Formats: sequence, structure tokens, C-alpha cells
Amino acid sequence: MQFRGRTVAAFVALTVAVTVLATLTLSDQWVALGSGKPTAAADGSGQSGLTGTETGKLGAVMNLIEQKYFREVDRAKVVDGAISGMMEALGDPYSVYMEKTSAQHFSESIEGSFTGIGAEVTLQDGKVTVVSPIKGSPAEKAGVLAKDVLISVDGESLEGVALSDAVAKIRGPKGTKVKLVIARAGVSTPVHLVLVRDDIDYETVYANLRDDGVGVIEIRQFSLNTGERFLEELAALEKKGMKGLVIDVRNNPGGVLPVVVSIAQPFVPKGKPIVMVEDRTGEREKTLSKGTGKDYPVAVLMNKGSASASEVLAGALKEAGGAVLVGETSFGKGTVQVSYDKATGDGSLVKMTIAKWLTPDGNWVHENGLKPDIESLPPDYYTVARLSKAKTQLPDTIGEDNRSLQIMLAALGYKTDRKDGYFSAETAEAVKQFQKQAQLPVTGEVDKTTAEKIEESLIVLIRNEQNDSQLNKAIQVVSQKAAK
Amino acid sequence: MQFRGRTVAAFVALTVAVTVLATLTLSDQWVALGSGKPTAAADGSGQSGLTGTETGKLGAVMNLIEQKYFREVDRAKVVDGAISGMMEALGDPYSVYMEKTSAQHFSESIEGSFTGIGAEVTLQDGKVTVVSPIKGSPAEKAGVLAKDVLISVDGESLEGVALSDAVAKIRGPKGTKVKLVIARAGVSTPVHLVLVRDDIDYETVYANLRDDGVGVIEIRQFSLNTGERFLEELAALEKKGMKGLVIDVRNNPGGVLPVVVSIAQPFVPKGKPIVMVEDRTGEREKTLSKGTGKDYPVAVLMNKGSASASEVLAGALKEAGGAVLVGETSFGKGTVQVSYDKATGDGSLVKMTIAKWLTPDGNWVHENGLKPDIESLPPDYYTVARLSKAKTQLPDTIGEDNRSLQIMLAALGYKTDRKDGYFSAETAEAVKQFQKQAQLPVTGEVDKTTAEKIEESLIVLIRNEQNDSQLNKAIQVVSQKAAK
Repeated sequence: MQFRGRTVAAFVALTVAVTVLATLTLSDQWVALGSGKPTAAADGSGQSGLTGTETGKLGAVMNLIEQKYFREVDRAKVVDGAISGMMEALGDPYSVYMEKTSAQHFSESIEGSFTGIGAEVTLQDGKVTVVSPIKGSPAEKAGVLAKDVLISVDGESLEGVALSDAVAKIRGPKGTKVKLVIARAGVSTPVHLVLVRDDIDYETVYANLRDDGVGVIEIRQFSLNTGERFLEELAALEKKGMKGLVIDVRNNPGGVLPVVVSIAQPFVPKGKPIVMVEDRTGEREKTLSKGTGKDYPVAVLMNKGSASASEVLAGALKEAGGAVLVGETSFGKGTVQVSYDKATGDGSLVKMTIAKWLTPDGNWVHENGLKPDIESLPPDYYTVARLSKAKTQLPDTIGEDNRSLQIMLAALGYKTDRKDGYFSAETAEAVKQFQKQAQLPVTGEVDKTTAEKIEESLIVLIRNEQNDSQLNKAIQVVSQKAAK
Repeated sequence: MQFRGRTVAAFVALTVAVTVLATLTLSDQWVALGSGKPTAAADGSGQSGLTGTETGKLGAVMNLIEQKYFREVDRAKVVDGAISGMMEALGDPYSVYMEKTSAQHFSESIEGSFTGIGAEVTLQDGKVTVVSPIKGSPAEKAGVLAKDVLISVDGESLEGVALSDAVAKIRGPKGTKVKLVIARAGVSTPVHLVLVRDDIDYETVYANLRDDGVGVIEIRQFSLNTGERFLEELAALEKKGMKGLVIDVRNNPGGVLPVVVSIAQPFVPKGKPIVMVEDRTGEREKTLSKGTGKDYPVAVLMNKGSASASEVLAGALKEAGGAVLVGETSFGKGTVQVSYDKATGDGSLVKMTIAKWLTPDGNWVHENGLKPDIESLPPDYYTVARLSKAKTQLPDTIGEDNRSLQIMLAALGYKTDRKDGYFSAETAEAVKQFQKQAQLPVTGEVDKTTAEKIEESLIVLIRNEQNDSQLNKAIQVVSQKAAK
């Protein structure tokens, strides 16, 4: 699964991809452990809860809904709505209520595992296509192969289905069966498979050592198993004689606080702070390193999608570990959440901001982010929107699709005079050049086939790591420092 | 105040304008009267309310918020959030919770009155300018004149302030004082005035009789006093020998159900249904007319902003009164709300959908709207967005501002080859023509001055009723019928 798809977010989704909103999470227990203070009772059995007036007001509205609303109502949904509304009233996007299903997805994400079949998929020529099955997963065991095209899931056709909807159909609870019909190159009849969904651990850490001695470790998110995996990979790289390290946390939305602390620790000399947590009374608690620091140069590669735990790491390594920050200003999320999964007693979960976190020097990154020491912006085609292909794009028209087209053509080396969405004569000329080289009818108009071919060429370009200018910059910085 | 500003919504806001979301409202009492059934107790004192489990769950979350959230919290806001969340969970945009201030604005709107100074204002050359003071209002009594420019309110400058924000500063509770500084043409020093805010009744009905004998009555919304006002104006027109009637409910968002019933009644022969209300059990209650019908032709002029009570009127007059519908398909809102203002006991209000309403023939217009018998679409310049004026618009660029520019130039009679937002050579030529006629420097570029002059010309065009093609169509239909 060594697939560097995360930089092509617009083009690839994974069955393994679970959305983690920018988060920095603690379990309720960890808070208690961390602060040394007992956790206040929060199960509704305590002394407080709602006052009589509050209960009366909420009850009156519930009565109106039950007795007067023009449709039958699911009471449980109304109560869920009330809790969501309470959290929304806080005005903090990171304090949210999740009903049972969302809560489960969130927990899976934090655990770095999910239940499913374990196949990465993408859309290719509009079809749901397997990128690779994950080692040891039901998909691999059943013989699903890379490039297999999924035709249907449990009898439901995937034709024209959005990738995220396809993924939703494929995933499901552990132990349940799913029927796949697959089209495979070189096999004339569709392949029918029945898979039993299982727990799938997904990889959050990818490491490699380059010929020049620079190691690159990419961390996709800080799940519970990420700390251990990082330290394994770090030890392996060091054993091979690594001369410098790039830690790549681009588009890493965060994760679990103790995990990022365990990852930062080796890079921060003993006794120096890694992070400070400040509660609402203003009391600060420092987490001090027990590590030793490293004698090789380290760069943290970040972008505007690097949030929360990623920023804890970047802040600690820069301010207390002497690392260099490369890339873009980070997301800017300086708060700590706790997942309260027992408060409501029904599998739902309250994730609530309980503190600010500060860098070793006492900076609060919230809404500002961390600035890179060495800025490196991604090329515009990394984030370009896909072509809609709804209708043929014609010269002398304007539109978002034309803008994307111009960015793609320029990325592929064709001459375009503008990237503003006006389909100029020069844009048409570039389209003709592309069509000629791709052996398509040379029309200067972008029909579905031309659009698909342009996108395929762009995906090839993006997947080639040599074109990753931000990563190259970080490697260069580390190389130069290592050479001194 | 005979100002037909409602068709120029993008350009004019009024101090008297109170937003009524598409609504069809009953008070709790009217429901009881209307249905002949007693209203169920809904004050929280009844037998039901929240169950122990529900109270426990909500209380647990309140405890977490009180004890753990990283900032101090206003409990009342959290409870308001809970109620909003309960209403949102219904998935019905017309069922909403309004806290005290919103509730008061809503009630004012339903009553057709508000507290303020009673002046219509608009933005002219970026300045808050009085269109006209309302008869008998504090503004009129204090000597505020049309074209007065408001410089400051209570010492706060209005320079660069959005119109809606300016209006918010001017309005306030009855009996409170407001200090205005006014610039007046022909007066060298600013005029200082102190006004005492009062209840302002605003007009919802405008009537006139044309030379050709066709009467036009515009109803802006169905407030509590609208029925009486309509019947007054109708009687006056009939007395003057009206030969046919256009009832204009364009952009009329609705109002109070018994009011629209009273307005429809004269046009629907005795015993025929005006409207049917269907509760959640499917039981239908017909409201039958006690009227006689009219022997002159009637057209209802509507557009996609004609909602709710407007659609009740259009449906009744077409299906039971033989009227012709002219204009555009209406908004499509087929439900009835009740305002429960006593349930929560603190000035807040729960507006909740309690029934569907159906036309005399049993059609439910919800989400579909009523189709006109004779379609007449407004010209594109009626809804064009204002120019942002943030920077000079230049040839060979694209953007929304260019699109608006092209629509405006075409409306003003200048030749433009396109309206897609590409600033073509022909667009530049049209700009030059305009600049020449307006005696501006002829640059072919649209700077702030040129943009303002173009908009001013457009406003003159729009305010001229002779250019109102939808109204003209409706008048023509009625005229032709009357001539037969």
C-alpha cells in the first residue's frame, strides 16, 4: 500500500479513508491521568444536570412537537438534535455531538482501524477501480487484484455512483458478507466474489531512506498505533545510517495527544517542554521531554492541511528540537478535545474542547497556524478541481472547467496564455497539441474522452514523487544541513 | 410612500422592511377557533414533557459543558441552542425556534407594525439616503425630508456601513431617543435632529386605477391589518367603476391565514372552498366562501417570490374564482405554521408546521408552486447583482462583475455581444458609448464612477413602472377580458 495518493486528494479516495476532522484528542481517562485530578462526575447522576425551569422549557417544546407537528416524529432524533444544538451554541467547531454511527467512525479513525474489505479504490474512466488490496485483508484473501473494476456491490450497480457512495456501500460491520462483481482485464466474464468484512488496520506511517542518506517519514494521522509504528520506522532508518530526516505531515488532520508527544520526545532534549496545556482557569501544565535530541538535521514538512497534533509536533520540534519547518503555514488549531463516550450512555459521543495547547515557547497557534522557516507552495495543479465532463468545453466560453483545463494543460507542459477560465484561441491550440500527442481527433474542443485523457496524464504527473516540489525542498534543506 | 421598490430588491432596502420568511401563520387561539377542537396543553405543565432518560442525557451534556468546556458558558444560550436543535431535527425549514429578539421582530412583522422612526432609506452613491418619511411617523414630524443623507446615528458614522446595519442602528424600542445628523442639499451645515422612536404601521396594500379602467392592487405581505386595508381599497376602486383587477403578489412571502381568506372571499362564490387544511391524521377541513364572486375579470400576478398565503390566494382565485394567473411559477410552500409564544414562557417563540394546506381542487403546491396560466418572466436586469466596485473592471478579464455589467448595459440599450462575464472588445465599446453619453472620461474601463453612473441609470429604468413587463402583461390580459 505504498501509494502516495494523499497529495492528489481531488482525484483519489480510499475505502480506508476515514474523515478525521482536525482534532487533538484525549480519552476521559487520559485527562484524569494527565492532570492528576479526579474527573468530575458527568453522567447525569450528579448533583447538577438541568434545572427545573430548563427541563420545563425543553419539555414544553417536546410536547408541542409530539402533539402538534404535522408529521410523526422520532423522539430520539429530536433529543439528538437538542444535544447537537447545545454543542453548536458553544460556537466552537471542534466541540461536537456524534450520534452512535458517527461516534463509531470517529473511534475507528482514532484507533487507526475500521471494518471493511480492505481495498483502496479510485475512480478511473468513471469506474470504481481497485488501486491495491491491503495485506492480509479480506480483499487480498479473496483474490481482489489491483486494477480490478468493481461493477456491483450486493447486486447494486456502481455505474455513475460517486466514489464516496461506492465506498459507503462496500464498508460495513465486521462479520457481515458483501457480494462483489468485478470486471478484470483479460477475463471475459465478470468475477463473482463473496467477502466477509473484518477489522482492517490501516497504515498511518510510511518511511523510506533515499540514496543520498535522507530519510522521509510520512505521518498521515496520529492514531493510537501511530507512535509505535513511527518509532519502529525511525529506528530502522537510523540503523541504516540515515544522515537527516524529513517528517512529512502535510494534510495530516491530527489525532491523539499522547501519541504525538511520544513521537516528538526523541527529538527534544531531556527536560525541555514538548507542549503546554492551559485549562480555563489559565493554569498551565507542561509536558517535559525524557528524550535526548538527535544529532542529525530534521525538517518538518507541513501545509495548510497540517492541523492540531501535526502542529504540536512542528511546534515542539522547531522550538525545542531545533528542526526546520518547510512548506506552508499550517492550519491553526490550538485546542485540545476530550471524547466523552460514556456521558450519554447510548453509544453516542460528546467531543468537547477542554483546553488550549501552547508551543514550548508559549505560542498559541489557533487560527494563525505555524509559519514555515522556508516557504514552499504546492503547484496549482495539485489542488485543481476535476473537469465536470457534463458537456464539451468550447472556445470563447468561460467557466470553472476552463480554468481547471488551463491549469492542467500548463502542468502537462502545453503553452497556455491564461488560467482565468476564458477559453482563448491559445487554449484551443494547446488542446489541439495535446490531442495530437494523445492520438485523439484534433478538434480543439474538450469532449469527455479528451477530458479523461488530460486528467489521466495529470494523475501520472502528480503520482511521480520527483514532481513533489515541497518534498524536494525539504529534502534539499536537510541534505545541505547534513553536509555541513 | 407610493414607492415601487420591491422589484428592485437588489438595490433598495427599507427601514420598514422586516424579513418575513415565507410563512402562513395562525396564532394558537385561531387554531382552536378554526378547528373547533380544544388546544392540547403545551406549557410543560402537562403529563408528558421529557422522559427521565432524556432529561438525564441532556443534563449529562450540560454538566460536561459547565465543568469541562475550556471557556465560561452562558447556560441560557446553551438551552436556546438545545431548542433550536430540536426544531432543526424536524427537517422542516418552517419550524423554527426564535429567541426573544427574533420573536419580537417576527410578531411585529405579522402585526404589520414595528418600532422605529418611520423612514424608508436606500443607498445612493454609497450613502444612506432617505427615500421618504412615512406619514405621521416620528421622521415626518421631526422634518426628515426625502433625499436627506444620514451622516451619523447616535454619534456613529454611517460611512461605509451596509444598509442593513445602518437600519439596525436606526431602529429600536418604542420611546427611546435617537440622534441623527443629516446632510441636506442646499443647507451648508449638517442638520441635527433628535427623534423618539414610536410604533410605525407600515403599508402592505397599494392600489391605483389606471386610465383604461384596470385596477391594480399590490399586496406586499398578509399582515393582521392587510385584510381590512385590501377591502377598503377594493371598494374604492369598484366605486370608481373599475373594469378589471390585477392583484400583484410578487415577492409577497405570505402572512396570516385568516387574512388571506378574508381577501379571497369576495372573489369566490358562496359555498365554494377557498382553502383546505389537512392535519397529520389526513383529516381535511374546508373553509367555504361566504362571498359572491365578481363579474369583472381578475388576474393574480405572481413570481417565484410569491409564497404561502400568496399561493393560497392565487390557488383560490384561480380554482374557485375563475381568475387568471400571470407571471412565474410561485415559490411552493404548502404548509401552515402556528406561533406558540407562551409555551416557553420567556418571550421566545416556537413557530411550528401543524398542517398542510391544499387548493380548492385538493392540490398540494409544496415544492412545486403554482404554474401561471400566462407566463411572463422578468427581464434579467431586475435581479442583476450590484457591481462590487472593488477594482476597475478591465477588458479581456472574466468575472461576475463583468456579467452584471453586460446585463446592465444591454438593459440601458447599449449593444453587447455577450452576457457571460467575459469583458470583450464589444463590451468595452458599449462602455465607451455609455461614458460618452454620461459625459465621463471615455476609457472603456469601468472604474467606480462609471459603475455608479451605470447603476443609477439602471435604477431610473427599473423604477419606471412602464418598464414592468410582467405587470403590463397582467394588465393586458385583464383589459382584453374586460373588453369582451
